[in-house]
Amino acid sequence: MSLPERIRVIEVGPRDGFQMERSFIPTGLKVEIVEGLAASGLTEIEAVSFVHPEVIPQMADAAEVMARIERREGVHYLALVPNLRGAERALEARADGLRLVVCVTETYNRRNVGLTIEESIALFGEMVRLGESAGVPVSAVLSVAFGCPFEGDVPEERVLELARRFAGLGSRELGLADSAGLANPLQVRRLLSRLRAELPDTPLWLHLHDTRGLGLANAAAAIEEGIDAFDTSLGGLGGCPIMVGASGNIATEDFVHLCHEIGLATGVDLDGVRAASRKLERFLERRLPSRVLAAGTRDELYALNR
Amino acid sequence: MSLPERIRVIEVGPRDGFQMERSFIPTGLKVEIVEGLAASGLTEIEAVSFVHPEVIPQMADAAEVMARIERREGVHYLALVPNLRGAERALEARADGLRLVVCVTETYNRRNVGLTIEESIALFGEMVRLGESAGVPVSAVLSVAFGCPFEGDVPEERVLELARRFAGLGSRELGLADSAGLANPLQVRRLLSRLRAELPDTPLWLHLHDTRGLGLANAAAAIEEGIDAFDTSLGGLGGCPIMVGASGNIATEDFVHLCHEIGLATGVDLDGVRAASRKLERFLERRLPSRVLAAGTRDELYALNR
Repeated sequence: MSLPERIRVIEVGPRDGFQMERSFIPTGLKVEIVEGLAASGLTEIEAVSFVHPEVIPQMADAAEVMARIERREGVHYLALVPNLRGAERALEARADGLRLVVCVTETYNRRNVGLTIEESIALFGEMVRLGESAGVPVSAVLSVAFGCPFEGDVPEERVLELARRFAGLGSRELGLADSAGLANPLQVRRLLSRLRAELPDTPLWLHLHDTRGLGLANAAAAIEEGIDAFDTSLGGLGGCPIMVGASGNIATEDFVHLCHEIGLATGVDLDGVRAASRKLERFLERRLPSRVLAAGTRDELYALNR
Repeated sequence: MSLPERIRVIEVGPRDGFQMERSFIPTGLKVEIVEGLAASGLTEIEAVSFVHPEVIPQMADAAEVMARIERREGVHYLALVPNLRGAERALEARADGLRLVVCVTETYNRRNVGLTIEESIALFGEMVRLGESAGVPVSAVLSVAFGCPFEGDVPEERVLELARRFAGLGSRELGLADSAGLANPLQVRRLLSRLRAELPDTPLWLHLHDTRGLGLANAAAAIEEGIDAFDTSLGGLGGCPIMVGASGNIATEDFVHLCHEIGLATGVDLDGVRAASRKLERFLERRLPSRVLAAGTRDELYALNR
């Protein structure tokens, strides 16, 4: 086992987390949260998505959020985009990177973005050209890569083939998403080691959900396989807002705590992230699922009894 | 990596879970839950502890619970005991196995059971003789083995030394407990591999809490190290009743689901365990923290869309 020395923590709460919330989070609070996260040492933040406001009303103010964020040097503010119009809006808003989600099963892709996978591939090619002309990197996220609610188990060959195609089209990095929380640690090890062997020059990142309690177990397995970049969400926000704690992203606090406990640097200051989560908890009027947010760290426990 | 073929799931909810609850769980409901768990294929159940009722009022009816349980063939009903009087009561109640908790730090042991570690060791020797005369196995649980809220990090040498002493005294198996939820996967691997090397003939089991979200990550790491026995608690019950979801045992449902997903047999029927958890949820009037209890399994998700 050779662990990475440093882990990239990519904060996606302001996009994947916020978009699941029913009450509209005021633009000012969104901006404050993103700025608080950037001030906590998070250098990659998926801040918004440029989708049609009828599809996701929570993201209707994406351009305004991007305009109002006071940019911090060294921090990359990313945008998720579903189509070329979204990509253009994201570039106008000075996004530092674009992400396109492609589901690896036809059924899910059609339901999620209304496209066949081949159409998504063609779209991605155009998006890369658009990004290149603006000097902004574009990456693809292969969603439901570990299992699809509609089509069931996903053959690893299909993920490998799509990964090759997106890498060939110029995806700066490749994300693998366990959108439905179906991955297990052995499956994560197997798929990642095959992908790394086939695409040694394409950086991979993981986007894990904790739906069945295996989020951090999968993350730990991936770290042991040498993966060094992970999407996380402040407080464990995300998933289903009516089933608290049931299906959010892995929590930034819990993941950062894991990394620090096993000796890996992240550059992230837990206190700052927790302050942002607490601000959100007050607005949402409920507890977020992060365990470290509730229980604190090892050092804090020790300090209590010193 | 050579994984064990079969995992022993030791249900401790009726003891470690129930004892944290403020409202007294009626004896009849306790009996129903234990019987429901046994009917679900769980063959080792820590059903009660024989402690003084002033210390843990919830366990005041331990003898009655043990008397009223309709015993199922092949199922072992275990009792936790803090002293010889408790051990005698447990044997009178026809417990199939006794467990004594010993904390590996002096401060925690004194606060938890009012004894020095040497006094606990002497007590354990007497308890083993008592058990032998009754033909009932006795095992020691080394508590706070991964970190102590009062003394901080615990040297592995101390755990190894105590493990050798308890094994030498005739502990049938040895439990390692992460009572404060401080373990991380690399630490689990390191300590377990050292213990297995030093005590190859003593079976080990793990007792993990999910306080900082790492319960299943630690369990997965331990399975990869060849450990095949784990304490779990229905619904993830346990820990602190006023901070729901913050510090319970790893949930039986979530752990069994993990085992089945990575291809390891447990003999446990998830539906039966969940039925018991739901019964408890109705009585306690709150949701238990188990994720699989809330979200269901992979197969169930697939079946929804078939």
